[in-house]
Amino acid sequence: MAALTLHPDRLFPADATTRDIARALYAEVADLPIISPHGHTDPAWFATDAPWDNATELLLAPDHYVFRMLYSQGVDLDALRVPRRDGTPATDPREAWRLFAGNYHLFRGTPSRMWLDHVFAEVFGFDTLLDAANADDYYDRINASLATPAFRPRALFERFDIDFLATTEGADDPLDHHAAIRRSGWRGRVVTTYRPDSVIDPDHEEFRPALARFAELTGEDVESWTGYLAAHRKRRADFRAAGATATDHGFATAQTANLSPAACEALFGRVMAGRADAADAELFRAQMLTEMAKMSVEDGMTMQIHPGACRNHNARLFDSHGRDKGADIPMRTDYVHALKPLLDVVGNEPHLTIILFTLDESTYARELAPLAGHYPCLRLGPSWWFHDSPEAMRRFREMTTETAGFYNSVGFNDDTRAFLSIPARHDVARRIDCSFLARLVAEHRLLDWEAAELAHELTNGLVRKAYGLDAAAPARKAA
Amino acid sequence: MAALTLHPDRLFPADATTRDIARALYAEVADLPIISPHGHTDPAWFATDAPWDNATELLLAPDHYVFRMLYSQGVDLDALRVPRRDGTPATDPREAWRLFAGNYHLFRGTPSRMWLDHVFAEVFGFDTLLDAANADDYYDRINASLATPAFRPRALFERFDIDFLATTEGADDPLDHHAAIRRSGWRGRVVTTYRPDSVIDPDHEEFRPALARFAELTGEDVESWTGYLAAHRKRRADFRAAGATATDHGFATAQTANLSPAACEALFGRVMAGRADAADAELFRAQMLTEMAKMSVEDGMTMQIHPGACRNHNARLFDSHGRDKGADIPMRTDYVHALKPLLDVVGNEPHLTIILFTLDESTYARELAPLAGHYPCLRLGPSWWFHDSPEAMRRFREMTTETAGFYNSVGFNDDTRAFLSIPARHDVARRIDCSFLARLVAEHRLLDWEAAELAHELTNGLVRKAYGLDAAAPARKAA
Amino acid sequence: MAALTLHPDRLFPADATTRDIARALYAEVADLPIISPHGHTDPAWFATDAPWDNATELLLAPDHYVFRMLYSQGVDLDALRVPRRDGTPATDPREAWRLFAGNYHLFRGTPSRMWLDHVFAEVFGFDTLLDAANADDYYDRINASLATPAFRPRALFERFDIDFLATTEGADDPLDHHAAIRRSGWRGRVVTTYRPDSVIDPDHEEFRPALARFAELTGEDVESWTGYLAAHRKRRADFRAAGATATDHGFATAQTANLSPAACEALFGRVMAGRADAADAELFRAQMLTEMAKMSVEDGMTMQIHPGACRNHNARLFDSHGRDKGADIPMRTDYVHALKPLLDVVGNEPHLTIILFTLDESTYARELAPLAGHYPCLRLGPSWWFHDSPEAMRRFREMTTETAGFYNSVGFNDDTRAFLSIPARHDVARRIDCSFLARLVAEHRLLDWEAAELAHELTNGLVRKAYGLDAAAPARKAA
Repeated sequence: MAALTLHPDRLFPADATTRDIARALYAEVADLPIISPHGHTDPAWFATDAPWDNATELLLAPDHYVFRMLYSQGVDLDALRVPRRDGTPATDPREAWRLFAGNYHLFRGTPSRMWLDHVFAEVFGFDTLLDAANADDYYDRINASLATPAFRPRALFERFDIDFLATTEGADDPLDHHAAIRRSGWRGRVVTTYRPDSVIDPDHEEFRPALARFAELTGEDVESWTGYLAAHRKRRADFRAAGATATDHGFATAQTANLSPAACEALFGRVMAGRADAADAELFRAQMLTEMAKMSVEDGMTMQIHPGACRNHNARLFDSHGRDKGADIPMRTDYVHALKPLLDVVGNEPHLTIILFTLDESTYARELAPLAGHYPCLRLGPSWWFHDSPEAMRRFREMTTETAGFYNSVGFNDDTRAFLSIPARHDVARRIDCSFLARLVAEHRLLDWEAAELAHELTNGLVRKAYGLDAAAPARKAA
Repeated sequence: MAALTLHPDRLFPADATTRDIARALYAEVADLPIISPHGHTDPAWFATDAPWDNATELLLAPDHYVFRMLYSQGVDLDALRVPRRDGTPATDPREAWRLFAGNYHLFRGTPSRMWLDHVFAEVFGFDTLLDAANADDYYDRINASLATPAFRPRALFERFDIDFLATTEGADDPLDHHAAIRRSGWRGRVVTTYRPDSVIDPDHEEFRPALARFAELTGEDVESWTGYLAAHRKRRADFRAAGATATDHGFATAQTANLSPAACEALFGRVMAGRADAADAELFRAQMLTEMAKMSVEDGMTMQIHPGACRNHNARLFDSHGRDKGADIPMRTDYVHALKPLLDVVGNEPHLTIILFTLDESTYARELAPLAGHYPCLRLGPSWWFHDSPEAMRRFREMTTETAGFYNSVGFNDDTRAFLSIPARHDVARRIDCSFLARLVAEHRLLDWEAAELAHELTNGLVRKAYGLDAAAPARKAA
Repeated sequence: MAALTLHPDRLFPADATTRDIARALYAEVADLPIISPHGHTDPAWFATDAPWDNATELLLAPDHYVFRMLYSQGVDLDALRVPRRDGTPATDPREAWRLFAGNYHLFRGTPSRMWLDHVFAEVFGFDTLLDAANADDYYDRINASLATPAFRPRALFERFDIDFLATTEGADDPLDHHAAIRRSGWRGRVVTTYRPDSVIDPDHEEFRPALARFAELTGEDVESWTGYLAAHRKRRADFRAAGATATDHGFATAQTANLSPAACEALFGRVMAGRADAADAELFRAQMLTEMAKMSVEDGMTMQIHPGACRNHNARLFDSHGRDKGADIPMRTDYVHALKPLLDVVGNEPHLTIILFTLDESTYARELAPLAGHYPCLRLGPSWWFHDSPEAMRRFREMTTETAGFYNSVGFNDDTRAFLSIPARHDVARRIDCSFLARLVAEHRLLDWEAAELAHELTNGLVRKAYGLDAAAPARKAA
């Protein structure tokens, strides 16, 4: 059996001079609390604090990073207990775990491997590398741990030293779990994020039912343009009351629009009447990004835009297993022309914060850094989704810093459903940022004390500011 | 005169720790046999085993990597004895060699320089760097060597320890040289690859004559859709009988289609009648990629798709010298939308292998790694053509591994007409892969024994599997 | 207060072996004279040799690299004394300087920081880092220096050891300052560059008035196609007489055209009649690039093409402050198809030099290096504008050298209005080139004496040749 150890110098550059600097910078920030302003954990975990069931259903079956890699090498999703649309689990969870363990070598060189090793070693205390031979031991020990109080969601939240955790809910969500968290008196700061995609995108399969719930929750006539906008304003206020400091928007493109009120009304009429063609649907999403930006100017919520995924690319798998099964594929994305209509309206607002994400790295140096290095409202989201990995994080810094500087970036987002991996992911980001800073120091492009200040900024300072987490933050100021 | 030596540590990272690891990994794989599953050597060489003529006609005049660089700096192709369309060589081969030698400095920093130095030092035993002063000595000594039995094609094949070499032939090729190789009793494994571009692409200048030969070789009515498909099936069987394990498809785009049988028949009718416009021609190529994929599901042949070159960009040069003269220029390529119709049909087939190549590196992290990291049938071809170079190979690993892993890649392809450079090219690939693995080890992202396993996989294991080279391989299994 | 020192090893790789090699290579070229063949300094400085006013108006208010970063973080342009369209400066220059100094940390990790530190330390002799506390001391000492003879434009030109400096003037410019420089007897070689964009681009706001001046200066009937071309020929001759060796063309795209004379005439007619739509305007720019290339074949002037910027992206800022205020954003650029019409006409001319620039790094390896590595007339401009930074310069060499070689590149362009930063910018380029060469030597991909030769070529040799600066240069040869 191979040993499992997390080397204290992991991810630092091999060069001894640079590594020493990286190690010193990392020591400054390794123990800072975790700020997680953008993610997809389930608020029910923190509302109920119920124990998780077993290793497979916690770590394997819901993690599309993990099962997509196994699927790509011919492993059937049913055999990994990935739920079908109809909910039937097709195999025993222990068998699924064995299959995963026997194929663990497939993750060599991937961030999933690093995160999983971190979870196994740090959270569960394993000291041998997962493989076919120890699969059952892993499975049994993880399950035994999960049954103890120390491994319940709130206990882990505290053990992980999470200072702030944002989940993501739709505009049609009653926010019951968040209300329950606040009612419970538990002091963990778990808040929601306003993600209205399903009530904005006419092509979303849930568009009509989500609109119906949206109407019910707000009491507004959402079939009129003014009622529809008023409903958004009400729900944004509900979300802010539930602690939200940000909104989140994930359409296929970054297209925005700036139509006249009359044109908006006519377009909205076609959408509601079911007469919107593909161009109308795109134009409506585009106009609504601008409307959301204008509302952010009003209410101070930070706006996140993350375009660029071709969702549900695998038609057969979408039929059998539904959304979010590892078949969302990034595509080429334009920002320069797409964002101009929105920026013509709000681009020069100094108190607005819009965070841009991308899945198209060719836009880092070409479009995103020049935009963020000019417009007061724009900030660069971190290397994200397929790119929340050591090499990609390094490319992000190398391709954005010289034009946009560090101060137009916003720290790390783990963007994950995999709660147990949150410390691992933040640790990777801190190590990579410190390694980048260390190289700048070693090459005499930055002074050591400046790098130390920046390490703090990249870990906690910039994220707190960008998401308005402090008393005097934008989210409150505009009220 | 400057010394010519191949430094044993060439291409390894300068950092001492990483270099030591790279050196150890390379020692594991340096002497493994060469598997060359995709290339353009001439099967006549191995069929006839005739000696080559002279240095210019072996190493300079046919190598578009070499003469395009000289041309870009104002050297006339005629003066390099690059043949014109009409076949007339315009200069003495010794004069051409002198011109090449006098401009050898132009190759500094390019892979051609490394490959040529390797050939000069290892194959011919030179110990001074090529320049104007030793041009004649080089020319005479190379020619003298070529006249000896040890420098005949089969002898070099054996000296190079080539375990498998695939050439590429059109669907209208009688495969006579391959038959001759097998009849000869020589044990070298030289096989063909099915490349039917000229009978599929209505815009190919050889389309009609190639179709006529295709009909003659198969006895099928290739003017009917069913006869045309049957002819492909027959020829694929012929190629498999001649040892082929793979097909190869190189159109300008990666566009695929999934038309109904009736629409296929109508489209084919327009193509045959000469009434296909540009959109029809593109649609026909697109549909045929899907047809080829379906036949690969039937017969187990690995399918290679390599789009992205704007062929014959230099109109005047195409008129005077024809194809393949260094004037094919890569262009932006889409895979996400282009491949979807094909993937809707065969994407989830676990026994199909489709290898994707690109000339557009911006697709590595954005499109190709996410696609290959999900679809069971997809694998990533190596860094290729303009990108079969140290920096580009490094970028390939850095931009694909984190999302697709190592196991969705397929080892190295030399893709060359320059037979003598094959060992040099594989050596470069092994050194770069070992250097990348060494960095992961040095940064504690991979264990040393895992890196050693992967070095073997990247050199021999993955290529054997992807191209079905072993007994239980896909190419046989489906029969 | 923090010390300000320029470390002698700055920008060299941290690895000791590679750094030693880089240091030795840099020592070879550190003191070579500066050749600046492409920039935007004001010829009036050298014509009048008048002293500059103050630190703010020399170093801050005109430098869009600097004030755009401050603007992106919410600092008002008026408060930085950036002039409005109507010319009114909105604040006291000392107050503007204090605001800049108090925000100097925003430049950490950017090239602006390195250039400014270089100017402060080397040109003005400061030894503490700029910050809020020493803002007044900086301001006063800089102003005191500027009032002395040693800081006048010509004195600094000589102190900087500038061998050649090209400015850029429009086709409607009388070139009076250049005439005055020559009349003055001063020996500094300051020449102009022919940039006819405003008389070629029908969408340019100055198109009609510039045409009127163009007509007046040439005495040609610029409303007829033949008169218009004749006017260009006359002005090109005027510019050559004023020392110009090059032309410069910066449209949004790289589109070129190759129309028949009749089609040219008809198109020109529509443009002159004000009946050109967007497609006509694009086609006219495209045709004129080809016309300019043909004139370069005639008169030997080097042609520079630098597409890819979406100009004046921020509409509100354009209204208030006008052009060149940091709101030009790069966009995706095609070269392969766009340049083909021009290359069909002049691509194979061995005595023509066309230098291509890009703001879209994804084209380096995919399009530009393959084009320059084939066509005799093409050369690669250096990493430019947003990309004249250490990381971007390194990417330029890594992504172009293997396909295009070093000899199809043309040395460094500072492209700046910030005269005092010219030595800093050339120093950065030399250090990065030497670092790249050092890595090739350390990895045994290049011999040490070859790297030394190349360091000289990249610093002075290639630029002199590409811009025809020497006696036997193209600019004279064709006359």
